[in-house]
Amino acid sequence: MAPRDFRKNAHSKPSKGGRPHRGPGKGGKPSRPPGKPQPQSSAPRPQRPEHGGRPANPGNWLYGLHAVQAALANPRRKLGRLLLTRRAAEIVGEERPDHVRVEIMEADAIGKLLPPGAVHQGAALEASPLPATDLETLLEAPHDRHQEGRRRIVLVLDQLSDPHNVGAILRSAAAFGVTAVVVQDRHAPPLSGALAKAASGALDLVPYVEVVNITRALEKLAEHGFWRIALAGDGEQSLQAAIPAGDVALVLGSEGDGIRRLVREHCDTAALIPIGGAMESLNVSNAAAIALYELRRI
Amino acid sequence: MAPRDFRKNAHSKPSKGGRPHRGPGKGGKPSRPPGKPQPQSSAPRPQRPEHGGRPANPGNWLYGLHAVQAALANPRRKLGRLLLTRRAAEIVGEERPDHVRVEIMEADAIGKLLPPGAVHQGAALEASPLPATDLETLLEAPHDRHQEGRRRIVLVLDQLSDPHNVGAILRSAAAFGVTAVVVQDRHAPPLSGALAKAASGALDLVPYVEVVNITRALEKLAEHGFWRIALAGDGEQSLQAAIPAGDVALVLGSEGDGIRRLVREHCDTAALIPIGGAMESLNVSNAAAIALYELRRI
Repeated sequence: MAPRDFRKNAHSKPSKGGRPHRGPGKGGKPSRPPGKPQPQSSAPRPQRPEHGGRPANPGNWLYGLHAVQAALANPRRKLGRLLLTRRAAEIVGEERPDHVRVEIMEADAIGKLLPPGAVHQGAALEASPLPATDLETLLEAPHDRHQEGRRRIVLVLDQLSDPHNVGAILRSAAAFGVTAVVVQDRHAPPLSGALAKAASGALDLVPYVEVVNITRALEKLAEHGFWRIALAGDGEQSLQAAIPAGDVALVLGSEGDGIRRLVREHCDTAALIPIGGAMESLNVSNAAAIALYELRRI
Repeated sequence: MAPRDFRKNAHSKPSKGGRPHRGPGKGGKPSRPPGKPQPQSSAPRPQRPEHGGRPANPGNWLYGLHAVQAALANPRRKLGRLLLTRRAAEIVGEERPDHVRVEIMEADAIGKLLPPGAVHQGAALEASPLPATDLETLLEAPHDRHQEGRRRIVLVLDQLSDPHNVGAILRSAAAFGVTAVVVQDRHAPPLSGALAKAASGALDLVPYVEVVNITRALEKLAEHGFWRIALAGDGEQSLQAAIPAGDVALVLGSEGDGIRRLVREHCDTAALIPIGGAMESLNVSNAAAIALYELRRI
C-alpha cells in the first residue's frame, strides 16, 4: 500500500464532534481535494486572527525528522515556520513545498522554542492541525483498491491520554494499514509535540477521527459490519480465538482504568493477549501492536 | 509462572562488565540468597560513603506505583526514603518491609524531588541499584521448572538509549517470561526514573545483564545453543519463518541506527515483521512485543 492511500477517504465532511480549532475543514467550508498543492496564500499569518479571532497557527509545533517530513508532504496542512539545523536541512531541505522557507538554526535555539526535553532531531515545523475527519464518511467510502481482500481495522481509543502511547499506536496503525483511529474529542491528547514525534509521521497518514461519544461510534461500526473486540486482561477468550473473518474494531482502554464499563458493553467480545503471571498487563501501545500483527496475520 | 521465578538465577556472580556503582553484588561479596528478608542493618545511610567514597544511595529514585511496589517486594534492593501521598499510601503502605518508614507528602512536594514531568502517581522510593548479573551463570543455571517445555528467550539490546523504550521492553520481557535482557554497559540508560516507571516493576523481575561486548555475548549465547535472530526491517525472511524449535536470542537495534554491522554478523539470521509500505518501521518496543508474542505463540 502506498502512503497516500490512507488519506483518500479522510477529508470529505467536517466532523460534528470536531474541535473548534481543528482548521480548514470546519464551518462548512469545503475541504481541498487530495493531492492538490496548497496555494501560497494559505501560508499562516501568526499575528492575524481569523475564524473568530483565533490566530491561524496557535503555536502548533511538530518536531522530529519523520514528523516534519510527513507534514511537509501533506497538502492538507497549512505550514508556518520551518526550523532546521544544517544537518537536518541536508535531509529535509529539498522535500519542502516551494513556499516554505527554511530557517537554519542551531539545535539549542530550536530547542528553546519547544517544550523542555523535546527530542527534535534538529527539525521543527509550525503547522496547522489537520481538518476533521468524519467516521460515517470514512466507513461509507468504497474500500481502497490496495486493501481489497484484507479486513478493515478500526482502532478505538477509550480515553488514552499518554501522548507517547497514542503516538506509537498511530505509528503501528499506519504500519498495519488501519482504516481509522477513533478517539473521544474531550479526552484525547493534542495532536502535536510528543505525540507527533512518537507517531513518526503517521499523524499525516492515518485518518484520526474525534467523536463526541465512543459508544455511539461503536454502534455505527456495528451497523457497518465491524466485529467489536475489547482488548482487556480479563477478556473471555484469547485474541487469536476472538478474531472473525471480516472487519474488526479493536477497542483499547487507558493504562490506569482500562476500558469503561459502558464502552465494553458495546463490544461483541472481550479478548486477552496471553501473558505470564509475572506482569499484570502490557504497555497499551505494545498490546495494540501485537493485536494489529495478529489481525493482519490471519 | 510466579513473579519471583525470574529472579532465581539472577544473582549468583558479579558481572565482569558491571558498573562500579552497581551495588552489593560487586567486589566478590557473596550475594544474599533469594527470598531471605533483608536485614535491617542494610538500610541505606545516605550521608556515609562506602565502596570507594561513593554514598550508598546516590539519589537513585524510583517512582510510579508499580515500580515502587516491585522494588519494595525485592529483597535484593537496599531501600532508602519512601514518599507517598495519602492515597498512594492506602495502596502501597502495607506492602513495605518493616524497616522502611513511610513519609506522607503532598504530590507536589514529591514531584519537586524528581525530574521535571515525572509521572510519579504519588509514590517515590530511594533504592539501591540491583546487584550485577552474569550471563554465563544465568545460562548455565538449570532451567526453571516453570519454564520446562518452553523455549528460553534472551533479548539483546544493541545500544538502545531511550528509557521509555527500554522500560517498555523490560515490561514485555517480564510478561512473556524472558530469561534475560542483555545490554552493553557503556551504552545503556540508567535503571531508574523514566525507565523504571515504563518498566512498571519489571526491573525487579527480569534479569538485566550488562556486558562489555555484545558480540562476545552473542558468541556465548550460540555456545549455549541459542539461535540468534536480528530483528531488522531489511531482514531476509519473516519473523515467523525465522523461528526455530529451540532457544532464541532476539537482537534489537537502536531507533536511529539499527543493529550495528558487526553485531548483525554475529546473528544466525535477520528477520522482519511484515508491515505495509506506509511506515518504514515500528517503534522498537512495539516490534519487541510482537516478536515476543510470536516466539511464545509457536
